[in-house]
Amino acid sequence: MLERACARSRGGYHGRVITLGIDPGTAICGFGVVQLRNGSVRMVDAGCIRTPSEATDAERLRQLHTALRTLMTEHRPDRVGIERLFFQRNVQTAMAVGQARGIALLAAAEAAVPIDEPTPNEVKQTICGNGSADKAQVAAMVKRLLGVSLEGVPDDATDALAIAIGCAYRAASEPRLAPVATR
Amino acid sequence: MLERACARSRGGYHGRVITLGIDPGTAICGFGVVQLRNGSVRMVDAGCIRTPSEATDAERLRQLHTALRTLMTEHRPDRVGIERLFFQRNVQTAMAVGQARGIALLAAAEAAVPIDEPTPNEVKQTICGNGSADKAQVAAMVKRLLGVSLEGVPDDATDALAIAIGCAYRAASEPRLAPVATR
Repeated sequence: MLERACARSRGGYHGRVITLGIDPGTAICGFGVVQLRNGSVRMVDAGCIRTPSEATDAERLRQLHTALRTLMTEHRPDRVGIERLFFQRNVQTAMAVGQARGIALLAAAEAAVPIDEPTPNEVKQTICGNGSADKAQVAAMVKRLLGVSLEGVPDDATDALAIAIGCAYRAASEPRLAPVATR
Repeated sequence: MLERACARSRGGYHGRVITLGIDPGTAICGFGVVQLRNGSVRMVDAGCIRTPSEATDAERLRQLHTALRTLMTEHRPDRVGIERLFFQRNVQTAMAVGQARGIALLAAAEAAVPIDEPTPNEVKQTICGNGSADKAQVAAMVKRLLGVSLEGVPDDATDALAIAIGCAYRAASEPRLAPVATR
Protein backbone atom coordinates (compact mmCIF):
# COMPACT_ATOMS: atom_id res chain seq x y z
CA MET A 1 0.00 0.00 0.00
CA LEU A 2 1.33 3.38 -1.01
CA GLU A 3 1.04 5.78 1.94
CA ARG A 4 1.87 9.42 1.36
CA ALA A 5 3.28 11.43 4.23
CA CYS A 6 2.48 14.76 2.57
CA ALA A 7 0.14 16.20 -0.04
CA ARG A 8 1.72 15.71 -3.42
CA SER A 9 2.87 18.99 -4.93
CA ARG A 10 0.71 20.02 -7.87
CA GLY A 11 3.21 22.57 -9.20
CA GLY A 12 4.49 22.23 -12.75
CA TYR A 13 7.71 20.33 -13.31
CA HIS A 14 8.90 22.87 -15.90
CA GLY A 15 12.60 23.62 -15.71
CA ARG A 16 13.11 21.37 -12.73
CA VAL A 17 15.03 18.17 -12.24
CA ILE A 18 13.07 15.49 -10.40
CA THR A 19 14.87 12.94 -8.20
CA LEU A 20 13.20 9.94 -6.57
CA GLY A 21 15.00 8.53 -3.53
CA ILE A 22 14.25 4.98 -2.41
CA ASP A 23 15.08 3.37 0.95
CA PRO A 24 14.44 -0.30 0.06
CA GLY A 25 12.70 -2.78 2.33
CA THR A 26 10.14 -5.55 1.90
CA ALA A 27 7.92 -4.67 4.89
CA ILE A 28 8.36 -0.89 4.59
CA CYS A 29 10.02 0.90 1.67
CA GLY A 30 10.51 4.65 2.02
CA PHE A 31 10.31 7.01 -0.93
CA GLY A 32 10.92 10.72 -1.38
CA VAL A 33 10.62 12.91 -4.45
CA VAL A 34 12.35 16.30 -4.70
CA GLN A 35 12.72 18.98 -7.34
CA LEU A 36 16.01 20.79 -7.76
CA ARG A 37 15.98 24.27 -9.28
CA ASN A 38 18.60 26.97 -9.07
CA GLY A 39 20.41 25.06 -6.37
CA SER A 40 17.49 24.66 -3.99
CA VAL A 41 15.33 21.62 -3.36
CA ARG A 42 11.60 21.35 -2.83
CA MET A 43 9.62 18.34 -1.61
CA VAL A 44 7.19 16.94 -4.18
CA ASP A 45 6.11 13.71 -2.53
CA ALA A 46 7.19 11.39 0.29
CA GLY A 47 5.89 8.37 2.08
CA CYS A 48 6.14 4.60 2.49
CA ILE A 49 5.12 1.50 0.67
CA ARG A 50 3.91 -1.01 3.24
CA THR A 51 3.22 -4.63 2.36
CA PRO A 52 1.03 -7.00 4.40
CA SER A 53 2.97 -9.12 6.90
CA GLU A 54 0.62 -12.08 6.31
CA ALA A 55 1.59 -12.24 2.62
CA THR A 56 4.48 -14.32 1.26
CA ASP A 57 7.78 -12.61 0.48
CA ALA A 58 7.10 -13.08 -3.22
CA GLU A 59 3.68 -11.42 -2.98
CA ARG A 60 5.13 -8.56 -0.93
CA LEU A 61 7.82 -8.01 -3.58
CA ARG A 62 5.13 -8.04 -6.27
CA GLN A 63 3.17 -5.33 -4.44
CA LEU A 64 6.37 -3.32 -3.91
CA HIS A 65 7.14 -3.54 -7.63
CA THR A 66 3.63 -2.36 -8.56
CA ALA A 67 3.82 0.62 -6.17
CA LEU A 68 7.29 1.65 -7.39
CA ARG A 69 6.07 1.49 -10.99
CA THR A 70 3.18 3.76 -10.01
CA LEU A 71 5.66 6.30 -8.58
CA MET A 72 7.82 6.13 -11.72
CA THR A 73 4.82 6.74 -13.97
CA GLU A 74 3.42 9.51 -11.78
CA HIS A 75 6.61 11.53 -11.29
CA ARG A 76 8.66 10.56 -14.32
CA PRO A 77 11.89 11.17 -12.36
CA ASP A 78 15.05 12.29 -14.15
CA ARG A 79 17.05 10.08 -11.82
CA VAL A 80 16.54 7.55 -9.08
CA GLY A 81 18.70 7.29 -5.96
CA ILE A 82 19.01 3.89 -4.27
CA GLU A 83 21.52 3.55 -1.44
CA ARG A 84 24.39 1.11 -1.83
CA LEU A 85 24.41 -0.68 1.49
CA PHE A 86 27.46 -2.33 2.98
CA PHE A 87 26.81 -2.59 6.67
CA GLN A 88 23.93 -4.94 7.21
CA ARG A 89 23.70 -6.61 10.58
CA ASN A 90 24.03 -10.09 9.12
CA VAL A 91 23.84 -12.17 6.00
CA GLN A 92 20.09 -12.89 6.36
CA THR A 93 19.28 -9.18 6.65
CA ALA A 94 21.50 -8.43 3.66
CA MET A 95 19.68 -11.09 1.61
CA ALA A 96 16.26 -9.65 2.54
CA VAL A 97 17.29 -6.05 1.79
CA GLY A 98 18.92 -7.27 -1.42
CA GLN A 99 15.60 -8.74 -2.57
CA ALA A 100 13.79 -5.42 -2.11
CA ARG A 101 16.74 -3.53 -3.59
CA GLY A 102 16.60 -5.76 -6.69
CA ILE A 103 12.94 -4.79 -7.18
CA ALA A 104 13.81 -1.07 -6.89
CA LEU A 105 16.64 -1.42 -9.43
CA LEU A 106 14.29 -3.30 -11.77
CA ALA A 107 11.56 -0.64 -11.55
CA ALA A 108 14.10 2.09 -12.38
CA ALA A 109 15.55 0.09 -15.29
CA GLU A 110 12.07 -0.61 -16.67
CA ALA A 111 11.38 3.14 -16.59
CA ALA A 112 14.79 3.74 -18.26
CA VAL A 113 15.79 6.23 -15.55
CA PRO A 114 19.49 6.75 -14.69
CA ILE A 115 20.29 5.37 -11.23
CA ASP A 116 22.65 6.81 -8.65
CA GLU A 117 23.80 4.42 -5.91
CA PRO A 118 25.47 6.47 -3.17
CA THR A 119 26.67 4.93 0.07
CA PRO A 120 25.00 6.17 3.29
CA ASN A 121 28.23 8.06 4.07
CA GLU A 122 28.12 9.84 0.72
CA VAL A 123 24.53 10.92 1.37
CA LYS A 124 25.47 12.26 4.81
CA GLN A 125 28.57 13.98 3.42
CA THR A 126 26.53 15.75 0.73
CA ILE A 127 23.70 16.81 3.04
CA CYS A 128 25.53 17.52 6.32
CA GLY A 129 29.11 17.98 5.13
CA ASN A 130 30.01 15.09 7.43
CA GLY A 131 29.99 11.45 6.36
CA SER A 132 29.47 10.24 9.91
CA ALA A 133 26.56 12.55 10.81
CA ASP A 134 23.91 10.85 12.93
CA LYS A 135 20.26 10.23 12.05
CA ALA A 136 19.01 13.33 13.92
CA GLN A 137 21.50 15.62 12.15
CA VAL A 138 20.46 14.25 8.76
CA ALA A 139 16.75 14.69 9.58
CA ALA A 140 17.38 18.25 10.77
CA MET A 141 19.19 19.11 7.54
CA VAL A 142 16.49 17.48 5.37
CA LYS A 143 13.91 19.63 7.18
CA ARG A 144 15.97 22.80 6.78
CA LEU A 145 16.82 22.22 3.11
CA LEU A 146 13.21 21.44 2.19
CA GLY A 147 11.80 24.19 4.41
CA VAL A 148 9.01 21.96 5.67
CA SER A 149 8.00 20.28 8.90
CA LEU A 150 8.70 16.56 8.93
CA GLU A 151 6.19 15.93 11.70
CA GLY A 152 4.25 12.78 10.92
CA VAL A 153 6.73 11.81 8.19
CA PRO A 154 7.93 8.24 8.88
CA ASP A 155 11.67 7.65 9.34
CA ASP A 156 11.86 5.59 6.15
CA ALA A 157 10.37 8.47 4.15
CA THR A 158 12.81 10.95 5.75
CA ASP A 159 15.71 8.62 4.87
CA ALA A 160 14.43 8.42 1.29
CA LEU A 161 14.17 12.23 1.10
CA ALA A 162 17.79 12.45 2.29
CA ILE A 163 18.83 10.04 -0.49
CA ALA A 164 16.85 12.06 -3.06
CA ILE A 165 18.40 15.37 -1.94
CA GLY A 166 21.87 13.86 -1.80
CA CYS A 167 21.55 12.45 -5.31
CA ALA A 168 20.09 15.70 -6.67
CA TYR A 169 23.04 17.70 -5.32
CA ARG A 170 25.60 15.07 -6.40
CA ALA A 171 24.24 15.14 -9.93
CA ALA A 172 24.29 18.95 -10.03
CA SER A 173 27.88 19.22 -8.82
CA GLU A 174 29.40 16.16 -10.45
CA PRO A 175 28.13 15.25 -13.90
CA ARG A 176 28.81 11.60 -13.23
CA LEU A 177 25.49 10.50 -14.67
CA ALA A 178 24.32 10.89 -18.23
CA PRO A 179 23.28 14.51 -18.89
CA VAL A 180 19.67 15.13 -17.93
CA ALA A 181 17.42 17.17 -20.21
CA THR A 182 15.65 20.04 -18.45
CA ARG A 183 11.94 19.92 -18.96
CA MET B 1 20.32 -14.11 -22.88
CA LEU B 2 18.46 -17.36 -22.43
CA GLU B 3 20.78 -20.27 -23.26
CA ARG B 4 19.32 -23.75 -23.35
CA ALA B 5 21.53 -26.67 -22.44
CA CYS B 6 19.20 -29.23 -24.03
CA ALA B 7 16.52 -29.41 -26.67
CA ARG B 8 13.23 -28.52 -25.07
CA SER B 9 10.92 -31.48 -24.76
CA ARG B 10 7.97 -31.24 -27.12
CA GLY B 11 5.95 -33.89 -25.31
CA GLY B 12 2.49 -33.03 -24.05
CA TYR B 13 2.12 -31.83 -20.47
CA HIS B 14 -1.03 -33.89 -19.96
CA GLY B 15 -1.27 -35.50 -16.54
CA ARG B 16 2.11 -34.23 -15.47
CA VAL B 17 3.19 -31.77 -12.84
CA ILE B 18 5.73 -29.22 -14.06
CA THR B 19 8.33 -27.78 -11.69
CA LEU B 20 10.71 -24.95 -12.56
CA GLY B 21 13.87 -24.77 -10.45
CA ILE B 22 15.83 -21.53 -10.31
CA ASP B 23 19.41 -21.02 -9.08
CA PRO B 24 19.45 -17.22 -8.82
CA GLY B 25 22.35 -15.00 -9.86
CA THR B 26 22.76 -11.71 -11.68
CA ALA B 27 25.59 -12.73 -14.03
CA ILE B 28 24.39 -16.33 -14.51
CA CYS B 29 21.04 -17.69 -13.38
CA GLY B 30 20.47 -21.42 -13.80
CA PHE B 31 17.08 -22.88 -14.62
CA GLY B 32 15.73 -26.41 -14.92
CA VAL B 33 12.26 -27.66 -15.77
CA VAL B 34 11.12 -31.19 -14.91
CA GLN B 35 7.90 -33.17 -15.23
CA LEU B 36 6.85 -35.54 -12.48
CA ARG B 37 4.57 -38.45 -13.35
CA ASN B 38 3.97 -41.65 -11.45
CA GLY B 39 6.93 -40.92 -9.21
CA SER B 40 9.50 -40.44 -11.93
CA VAL B 41 10.97 -37.24 -13.29
CA ARG B 42 11.80 -36.23 -16.84
CA MET B 43 13.82 -33.23 -18.02
CA VAL B 44 11.83 -30.72 -20.07
CA ASP B 45 14.25 -27.84 -20.31
CA ALA B 46 17.45 -26.59 -18.67
CA GLY B 47 19.97 -23.86 -19.18
CA CYS B 48 21.22 -20.48 -18.04
CA ILE B 49 20.26 -16.88 -18.29
CA ARG B 50 23.43 -14.85 -18.80
CA THR B 51 23.46 -11.07 -18.62
CA PRO B 52 26.13 -8.81 -20.16
CA SER B 53 28.93 -7.87 -17.73
CA GLU B 54 29.20 -4.41 -19.29
CA ALA B 55 25.59 -3.58 -18.36
CA THR B 56 24.56 -1.97 -15.07
CA ASP B 57 23.18 -4.16 -12.28
CA ALA B 58 19.73 -2.66 -12.87
CA GLU B 59 19.80 -3.48 -16.59
CA ARG B 60 21.05 -7.02 -15.85
CA LEU B 61 18.17 -7.52 -13.41
CA ARG B 62 15.74 -6.21 -16.03
CA GLN B 63 17.03 -8.74 -18.56
CA LEU B 64 16.85 -11.51 -15.95
CA HIS B 65 13.24 -10.58 -15.20
CA THR B 66 12.30 -10.66 -18.88
CA ALA B 67 13.92 -14.09 -19.40
CA LEU B 68 12.25 -15.57 -16.29
CA ARG B 69 8.88 -14.26 -17.48
CA THR B 70 9.51 -15.97 -20.82
CA LEU B 71 10.13 -19.29 -19.02
CA MET B 72 6.98 -18.87 -16.90
CA THR B 73 4.87 -18.20 -20.00
CA GLU B 74 6.44 -21.02 -21.98
CA HIS B 75 6.23 -23.79 -19.39
CA ARG B 76 3.35 -22.60 -17.18
CA PRO B 77 4.91 -24.42 -14.19
CA ASP B 78 2.70 -25.77 -11.41
CA ARG B 79 5.32 -24.71 -8.91
CA VAL B 80 8.60 -22.88 -8.77
CA GLY B 81 11.55 -23.87 -6.57
CA ILE B 82 13.96 -21.15 -5.44
CA GLU B 83 16.61 -22.10 -2.90
CA ARG B 84 16.60 -20.38 0.47
CA LEU B 85 20.24 -19.49 0.96
CA PHE B 86 21.86 -18.99 4.35
CA PHE B 87 25.53 -19.50 3.84
CA GLN B 88 26.81 -16.76 1.61
CA ARG B 89 30.49 -15.96 1.84
CA ASN B 90 29.85 -12.40 2.97
CA VAL B 91 27.32 -9.63 3.25
CA GLN B 92 28.11 -8.17 -0.20
CA THR B 93 27.59 -11.55 -1.89
CA ALA B 94 24.35 -12.04 0.05
CA MET B 95 23.11 -8.63 -1.10
CA ALA B 96 23.91 -9.41 -4.76
CA VAL B 97 22.29 -12.86 -4.64
CA GLY B 98 19.34 -11.30 -2.79
CA GLN B 99 18.78 -8.88 -5.67
CA ALA B 100 18.58 -11.70 -8.22
CA ARG B 101 16.50 -13.81 -5.83
CA GLY B 102 14.02 -10.93 -5.46
CA ILE B 103 13.58 -10.88 -9.24
CA ALA B 104 12.94 -14.64 -9.31
CA LEU B 105 10.35 -14.37 -6.50
CA LEU B 106 8.69 -11.48 -8.34
CA ALA B 107 8.47 -13.39 -11.63
CA ALA B 108 6.85 -16.36 -9.85
CA ALA B 109 4.39 -14.11 -7.98
CA GLU B 110 3.45 -12.33 -11.20
CA ALA B 111 2.70 -15.69 -12.78
CA ALA B 112 0.71 -16.65 -9.64
CA VAL B 113 2.69 -19.89 -9.24
CA PRO B 114 3.16 -21.44 -5.77
CA ILE B 115 6.77 -21.16 -4.63
CA ASP B 116 8.79 -23.69 -2.66
CA GLU B 117 11.92 -22.38 -0.95
CA PRO B 118 13.99 -25.35 0.21
CA THR B 119 17.41 -24.95 1.79
CA PRO B 120 20.35 -26.51 -0.10
CA ASN B 121 20.45 -29.24 2.59
CA GLU B 122 16.80 -30.08 2.02
CA VAL B 123 17.42 -30.41 -1.73
CA LYS B 124 20.39 -32.73 -1.08
CA GLN B 125 18.42 -34.73 1.48
CA THR B 126 15.55 -35.28 -0.96
CA ILE B 127 17.74 -36.19 -3.93
CA CYS B 128 20.63 -38.06 -2.30
CA GLY B 129 19.11 -39.02 1.07
CA ASN B 130 21.96 -37.08 2.65
CA GLY B 131 21.77 -33.37 3.50
CA SER B 132 25.53 -32.96 3.31
CA ALA B 133 26.07 -34.69 -0.04
CA ASP B 134 28.71 -32.99 -2.19
CA LYS B 135 28.24 -31.37 -5.60
CA ALA B 136 29.42 -34.43 -7.54
CA GLN B 137 26.99 -36.75 -5.70
CA VAL B 138 24.10 -34.40 -6.41
CA ALA B 139 25.05 -34.14 -10.11
CA ALA B 140 25.33 -37.95 -10.34
CA MET B 141 21.86 -38.40 -8.82
CA VAL B 142 20.33 -35.72 -11.08
CA LYS B 143 21.78 -37.57 -14.08
CA ARG B 144 20.50 -40.93 -12.84
CA LEU B 145 17.02 -39.69 -11.92
CA LEU B 146 16.53 -37.90 -15.24
CA GLY B 147 18.15 -40.71 -17.24
CA VAL B 148 20.08 -38.26 -19.40
CA SER B 149 23.67 -37.22 -19.95
CA LEU B 150 24.52 -33.91 -18.37
CA GLU B 151 27.52 -33.38 -20.64
CA GLY B 152 27.62 -29.78 -21.76
CA VAL B 153 25.05 -28.78 -19.16
CA PRO B 154 26.47 -25.87 -17.11
CA ASP B 155 26.80 -26.29 -13.34
CA ASP B 156 24.16 -23.62 -12.69
CA ALA B 157 21.66 -25.50 -14.84
CA THR B 158 22.46 -28.79 -13.06
CA ASP B 159 21.96 -27.06 -9.70
CA ALA B 160 18.61 -25.70 -10.92
CA LEU B 161 17.56 -29.19 -12.10
CA ALA B 162 18.41 -30.53 -8.62
CA ILE B 163 16.21 -27.83 -7.06
CA ALA B 164 13.38 -28.65 -9.49
CA ILE B 165 13.59 -32.40 -8.79
CA GLY B 166 13.85 -31.82 -5.04
CA CYS B 167 10.78 -29.56 -5.05
CA ALA B 168 8.80 -31.95 -7.28
CA TYR B 169 9.46 -34.86 -4.88
CA ARG B 170 8.86 -32.73 -1.79
CA ALA B 171 5.49 -31.60 -3.13
CA ALA B 172 4.52 -35.17 -4.03
CA SER B 173 5.37 -36.56 -0.59
CA GLU B 174 4.39 -33.63 1.60
CA PRO B 175 1.36 -31.65 0.51
CA ARG B 176 2.79 -28.50 2.06
CA LEU B 177 1.90 -26.36 -0.93
CA ALA B 178 -1.58 -25.62 -2.20
CA PRO B 179 -2.96 -28.62 -4.08
CA VAL B 180 -1.96 -28.60 -7.71
CA ALA B 181 -4.49 -29.43 -10.38
CA THR B 182 -3.35 -32.11 -12.78
CA ARG B 183 -3.58 -30.99 -16.33
